[in-house]
This record gives sequence, C-alpha cells and structure tokens, in this order.
Amino acid sequence: MNPSEWFTEQVPAAGSAFSLKIKQKVHEEQSEFQHLEIYETETFGNLMVIDGCTMVSTRDNFFYHEMMSHPALYTHPDPKRVWIIGGGDCGTLSEVLKHPSVEQAVQIDIDERVTRLAEIYFPELCESNNDPRAELKFIDGIKWVKDAAPDSVDIIIVDSTDPVGPALGLFSEDFYRDCFNCLSENGMIVQQSESALYNMTLIGEMRNAMSVIGFNHLQTLFFPQCIYPSGWWSATIASKADLTTFREQDSANKPFETVYYNVDIHKASLAQPEFFKNAFGL
Amino acid sequence: MNPSEWFTEQVPAAGSAFSLKIKQKVHEEQSEFQHLEIYETETFGNLMVIDGCTMVSTRDNFFYHEMMSHPALYTHPDPKRVWIIGGGDCGTLSEVLKHPSVEQAVQIDIDERVTRLAEIYFPELCESNNDPRAELKFIDGIKWVKDAAPDSVDIIIVDSTDPVGPALGLFSEDFYRDCFNCLSENGMIVQQSESALYNMTLIGEMRNAMSVIGFNHLQTLFFPQCIYPSGWWSATIASKADLTTFREQDSANKPFETVYYNVDIHKASLAQPEFFKNAFGL
Repeated sequence: MNPSEWFTEQVPAAGSAFSLKIKQKVHEEQSEFQHLEIYETETFGNLMVIDGCTMVSTRDNFFYHEMMSHPALYTHPDPKRVWIIGGGDCGTLSEVLKHPSVEQAVQIDIDERVTRLAEIYFPELCESNNDPRAELKFIDGIKWVKDAAPDSVDIIIVDSTDPVGPALGLFSEDFYRDCFNCLSENGMIVQQSESALYNMTLIGEMRNAMSVIGFNHLQTLFFPQCIYPSGWWSATIASKADLTTFREQDSANKPFETVYYNVDIHKASLAQPEFFKNAFGL
Repeated sequence: MNPSEWFTEQVPAAGSAFSLKIKQKVHEEQSEFQHLEIYETETFGNLMVIDGCTMVSTRDNFFYHEMMSHPALYTHPDPKRVWIIGGGDCGTLSEVLKHPSVEQAVQIDIDERVTRLAEIYFPELCESNNDPRAELKFIDGIKWVKDAAPDSVDIIIVDSTDPVGPALGLFSEDFYRDCFNCLSENGMIVQQSESALYNMTLIGEMRNAMSVIGFNHLQTLFFPQCIYPSGWWSATIASKADLTTFREQDSANKPFETVYYNVDIHKASLAQPEFFKNAFGL
C-alpha cells in the first residue's frame, strides 16, 4: 500500500490496523489539546482523525451516534436534560435533539477546534447546533461535572476519545462519582467503552468503577462500527434506576428517522455474548 | 507499515483495508483451485488466507462458525442431515456436530488442501473430523447438490469464499434451485452473505434469487467478524418453512459451550437495521 494513498490507524496492542483509501488530506493542525487531521476518502466521505485515531467518517458515523443516544434516551423515563461530554463533532448532539422530551442538551468538549472543523467537513452533523435547546461549551468536561449541583441532569453521554491524553480522566472513579452526584433520581451515564474483542480489561475496570461509586445497574451495548478497532464497538450504561426495561412503545413509534437504530436493534444491542456473560458473571 | 511485518487485505470496491501484524508466513502454496497462505500473527494466532482474502484466524473464527451453524440448527425443528458446502477449515462442521440431533454431517469442499492445512494449523477446528457422523468429501459442491435426490438433507450451510472464482456458482439461481430440490420439507439453506455495509447489492441479488426459485421465507442474520471486510458480517437463511420462531428453549439449554452464541445473541442476530428494512421493504 502506498502510504500517500491510504490513512492507516494501527492498534499496536491488538496487532491489527484499519486503512481507508484517501483522495487527499484536506486539513491538519495541532490544537491546544490534540493533533487534528481531516481526509477526503475515496468511499467513506470525509474522515476526522484525532491523535492518529479515526474519530468520525461521513459514511459510517450513524452507527456510533445513534447507539450512543437512542438506547439511553429511550431507557430513561423522561429525559429532559442531557449533557454530552466530548462529542465535539456534534453528531451525538444532533441525535439527542431528535427526542421531543429533551429541553436542554449541553455539549461540553474541551477542544473548540473539533467543532469548528466539524462545521466545515461534517455539516450534516451540525445541522441542529442552532436548535434553541442546544448549548455548546468549550471547557473541561471533568471540571464541569465536578462543579455541577445535585439533580442538574438526567443523562450524561460520555462521547470521548480513547482513554489516553485529555480523555483519561473520563474513565475514573472520581469522574463517575461526580456524575452520580449531579444526576437526577433516575439518572444515567452512557459511555463509549471500546471493543469487547480487544478491551475486556478496560470494560471490566469501567464496570467495576461505576459500580463501586454507587451505580447499581449496568448494561453494556454492542454495535458495529467499521472504522473503529475490530469493527465491533460497545457503550456502557450505568444507571441509578433499573435497566431491565426501556420505553419500547415510544421507540417503536420514534418520530424521527434513523439509519441503524430501531426498536429491534435496541433490544439486539442488549444481548450479551457468551464470553462476556462468563467474564462478568452475568 | 513495513509490508514484511503485516498481512493486509485490501477491499478495493470499499476503499478500505484490514491488516494483522505477523510474526512469519509459515506456509504458501498454489493448490489446484486457489492460492493458500498461512501466517503466524502477533495476536490473532494463525491466519489462513485464500486468494489474498482472510479466511480464518485462531482468535476470532468463533463468531463466524457459531453464527453459520447454531441459528439455523436451532430454527429447523429436527435437523438430522446437514451438508456444509465449502467450509474446508472444518470449523462449521465442528459446531454442527455439537447438536445431538444431527445424525449425518457432510462437508463438501472442492479443495482438499484447505482441510489438510487446517488439520496442521487449526487443529482445534478439526477435533470432530473423526466423529462417526462426519463425512469429508473433496468434490465440487455445486455438482453434489445438483446430483442429489429429493429429500436428501435438512440444512445446507454454504460456507464459501467470496462470490468470485470457484465460489461464484454458489451465489446463483441454478444452485439455489438445486438446493431447494434436495432439501426436505422444512429444509433450509444458510449462506454467508458478506457485509451489509459494503455489499447490499449482493445481498439483494441473493435474496431475490432465493425467493424467485421458491424459498418463501428469508432471514438475514448479523454478527461481528473482525477480520472480514467492515468487521460486520451477515448470513442469509432461505427456508421452505416459516422462520419467525426458533427452538428458543433448546437454545437456552444448549448442551455445549460456545464463545459468542447464546439464546439472546440468536434473537439479537435477527434484528434488521433500519436501512436494511427500508432497502428490502421489511
């Protein structure tokens, strides 16, 4: 492969790599926080890369953004206030705002440059940024949650990069405790939790930390995500309230379009593979 | 990436590529039918490559082999006779033989060399090859099915390479008609059907051909498969009988171990993504 024709993300610990054929690199900068690149690919539309890792492509981001949003929002009985920690490409924000019950959606990404680039290269993800219910803050999400008053929010979506660099603190007991303290009675956090084929140790540590600080109900969701390592991704929900049911009827009658998510896919994402059940005694 | 340290499969039409880090190439030959390579990888165990495409790795083959077998076998009311067309690595055969109802499992792969290499490099997939119910034939599966008498078999599993080269005829109306004719009353075929992210045209053509020749019941299943293009794979079941239920109780009490499959995963694999439902009017 000619390196000038491909973007490749290597995953050293997994001994694998994924590549997309590119037409050209259209942007590159070092922001205050991370290294940002935008590529025009042959078949995946535009691709955003942060610190060498694929973040979002035009073609396949729907899996991730829909699955980070709709399962949690259709599980909470009445989600009015949603915070997105990270998520600077605005794709998750846009899915959250499809829910009529939502009165306030705050996206808190430390790096304003991610959003400014998304506005240029992923305009379809930013179409709801001017929704009167939306608020975009470019500050430290960890501090935002730490400083928040009790009962400030119903759902916190942690839409972060991998647990290295600025995102490391988002995978800690301290952060989960701060989330717990500002969440409302039925509040929940949903966090991207990497690949169950590659990162079972991380998922175990996350689940343990969430549970130790008082979230009594955990659920890991599984879904495809072609451009992420292994192509098989997960999100973990930690909730104050029972997670065994969701608003199935509302999901079946969702008043908006999706590409991947529907009520059957919601149920399917909750199925735990045999090795996963065995690993965590589920 | 140093090409001597990685095996890479490019998917030109999809503009993507997947790579595994290798320790060494341990075998290479041109058989009568195809080019066969075996690599020792850093983290995925051994890897078999046929005509440049990843076929099976020690680490992640369980997804594919379990999902090609157990959903179909737990859907048929009483599967006694199973044929595997292709499947020379013997992984599907081994899963099929886990079902106590099975009295005869015939694997028909045109290329004996695939099986001889699997015996050396994937011995764990070949552990059931001496089961008295197992029969290994190294002949043309298309002709085998064409020559078969009516009511010869309950389930035909088409565990083939991509629809190019020797496998092309396995994706044709003629082949499906021959399958239909030798299947028993509740008989079904299950065939690997590539990635729904990359190959919707192929899946549509398969479904159409299966339906045209008389299979009135179709079901596409979805599951992860890291080393295959996009990391998200599918299998399509075409059946003479209704597919809306399966032997859920038997699946929940399966008398054998699996790594991925269980009764919840079975149900989950049947969920159709929104874009898939829209494409086929489901």
